[in-house]
Amino acid sequence: MSGREVQLRSVGTALPGPAIDNATLARRFGVGEVWEQWVEAFLGTRTRHLSVDLFTGEVDGWLADLGALAGQRALAAAGVAPGEVDLIVLATSSPDQLMPATVNVIADRLGIDEIPSFQLQSGCSGALQALDLARQLLLGGRHRTALVLGGDVSAKQWDLTADPRTVPQAQLVNAAMFGDGVGAAVLGVDAEPGTQPGTQPGAGSVVLREVRVRLGGLGRPSGHVVEWFGVADRHRLGPGVDEDYKAIEQLVPGLAEQVLDELLHDVGWKRSDVDYLLPPQLSGRMTAKIVETLAVQGAVEVTVVPDVGNTGNALPFFQLERLLPRLSPGDRAVALAIESSKWIRSAFALEKVAAP
Amino acid sequence: MSGREVQLRSVGTALPGPAIDNATLARRFGVGEVWEQWVEAFLGTRTRHLSVDLFTGEVDGWLADLGALAGQRALAAAGVAPGEVDLIVLATSSPDQLMPATVNVIADRLGIDEIPSFQLQSGCSGALQALDLARQLLLGGRHRTALVLGGDVSAKQWDLTADPRTVPQAQLVNAAMFGDGVGAAVLGVDAEPGTQPGTQPGAGSVVLREVRVRLGGLGRPSGHVVEWFGVADRHRLGPGVDEDYKAIEQLVPGLAEQVLDELLHDVGWKRSDVDYLLPPQLSGRMTAKIVETLAVQGAVEVTVVPDVGNTGNALPFFQLERLLPRLSPGDRAVALAIESSKWIRSAFALEKVAAP
Repeated sequence: MSGREVQLRSVGTALPGPAIDNATLARRFGVGEVWEQWVEAFLGTRTRHLSVDLFTGEVDGWLADLGALAGQRALAAAGVAPGEVDLIVLATSSPDQLMPATVNVIADRLGIDEIPSFQLQSGCSGALQALDLARQLLLGGRHRTALVLGGDVSAKQWDLTADPRTVPQAQLVNAAMFGDGVGAAVLGVDAEPGTQPGTQPGAGSVVLREVRVRLGGLGRPSGHVVEWFGVADRHRLGPGVDEDYKAIEQLVPGLAEQVLDELLHDVGWKRSDVDYLLPPQLSGRMTAKIVETLAVQGAVEVTVVPDVGNTGNALPFFQLERLLPRLSPGDRAVALAIESSKWIRSAFALEKVAAP
Repeated sequence: MSGREVQLRSVGTALPGPAIDNATLARRFGVGEVWEQWVEAFLGTRTRHLSVDLFTGEVDGWLADLGALAGQRALAAAGVAPGEVDLIVLATSSPDQLMPATVNVIADRLGIDEIPSFQLQSGCSGALQALDLARQLLLGGRHRTALVLGGDVSAKQWDLTADPRTVPQAQLVNAAMFGDGVGAAVLGVDAEPGTQPGTQPGAGSVVLREVRVRLGGLGRPSGHVVEWFGVADRHRLGPGVDEDYKAIEQLVPGLAEQVLDELLHDVGWKRSDVDYLLPPQLSGRMTAKIVETLAVQGAVEVTVVPDVGNTGNALPFFQLERLLPRLSPGDRAVALAIESSKWIRSAFALEKVAAP
């Protein structure tokens, strides 16, 4: 590895349509003010953005549209031209099509070509898997500048033709909890530190010290299932999405604690070294419980669910977007994500270092 | 990279159900002997295996079932225990579900846990993307033993309830051309060459010299589209699969030639150094045209489509399974795959080296 370091140069995000508040959701599904208040108190989500207009069914941007926009913003923020990108990775659970892979459509829109591209099929750990993959390939020396994206458009799973009164309670919870969006980051590596394009002299740089992802669900049933429907499947259709919230509530805090300990061990940090904590963001109540379990005293929590909901593969990018402008040289941040689909625990460690 | 080498230790494959011949397909779709003869002459496919029984609709193994079987076979052939695998990668265009990722279900079935897992959403270049990813991560030093899988279950896209007389010609072609299956390979790396488990002394080893994958379709429309249907999409259903065979026929030979030249340049080989050629396998006629364009005189062609059809992400593993027992020390092989979904060209180079 020869002391090579991977820098997080910029972050960009994209959201579809306007912010949809709980009152609008309640109106659309014909549920009352009690539900609205429950969402705010229990889930902690006040607004989210959706790719589908709830009332007209009109589509405002699928994954490729949002991905191209987020990618463009991240590239602009880093001062990197599309031609300088030599690796592109997208993580998502909700590709626009099975083929072509959405990552390649995004590359096309951005004018990125003649490079390897990877699309990871993944849930809440996807952004961290993508960062892990890009970091390893950058450290390996084959690549210098990676565009890493994560995003989801869960609104595709909604049946807007269904009678609102027949929509099961579990689906209403999902409608309130999830939001659509895409995030992107530019990662880079330099043979000589401090010579990277796109960073202002004296501004310092943010080093992605470590990413850790572990599949850990041996023999344990899935906590989150999302179906895809091929033609053959249309004849055996159940619900498209199913969660086991009890299992999620029971297992996620412990898994988050475990991967935090593992990550801190990997990078040689103590809890008291952590200045910012980017926790898993399933719901407000869950996040509060997780943060309490983690007991990282003194760390500032970076939370985005109240404004954008759980955007799945995009969520860590929204957290990073809030974090980056706040970081001063010497600051350290830790992000955690747990994927309940098969109990994947993942975490990364960031550190802002002064410019040389 | 410190002279580290990645070895291809074993290959295993799995096919569902019995071999389905063209006469059976013709009978199922109510088309005659002329069609049957056309399939044999034009596509060159005599049999394929399908995950769905054409007459009863019964399912004989989805991707996870076949993947676990292929993985088991590859591990057994390499003499590697599940606990020794420290990286698992699956490439597919037809995951069983969007979440959990099928790679994690396969890992669970095999008793593989506590490692990073990656599932690549990809088409005909997927196996090579997975090999590329695993090779890079092994060379990076973080992993020692990788299980790499590729597979597809295209039969999911078939509508077995449709009146056979209404099935469009293009779908009949697909039914004849594609087959279901999964392949797996064990890749390994050693600090000290010749000390790897699972290779018999004196037997030599097969080195994966290079994998090259390039997205190259900037501004070019897709040649192959596979839809996924979320709940919202059920109300705007078109056909699940669409190919532009004219574009494929026009572009694939040239792209195959281009990536062959690039790969040979990367590894410093001449055409006359290549002993075995694993060409793209869309159909018999296409393959013949590609092989003619490539002009690798003297190389033995390794073809599997007549027996298993185009198995997508699994195909290179079926070719490798036939190749490996034939290789003698000093033999060199080149495999090519072109993904028309967004015109990805990919290739890898293998070399058998004598045991030290």
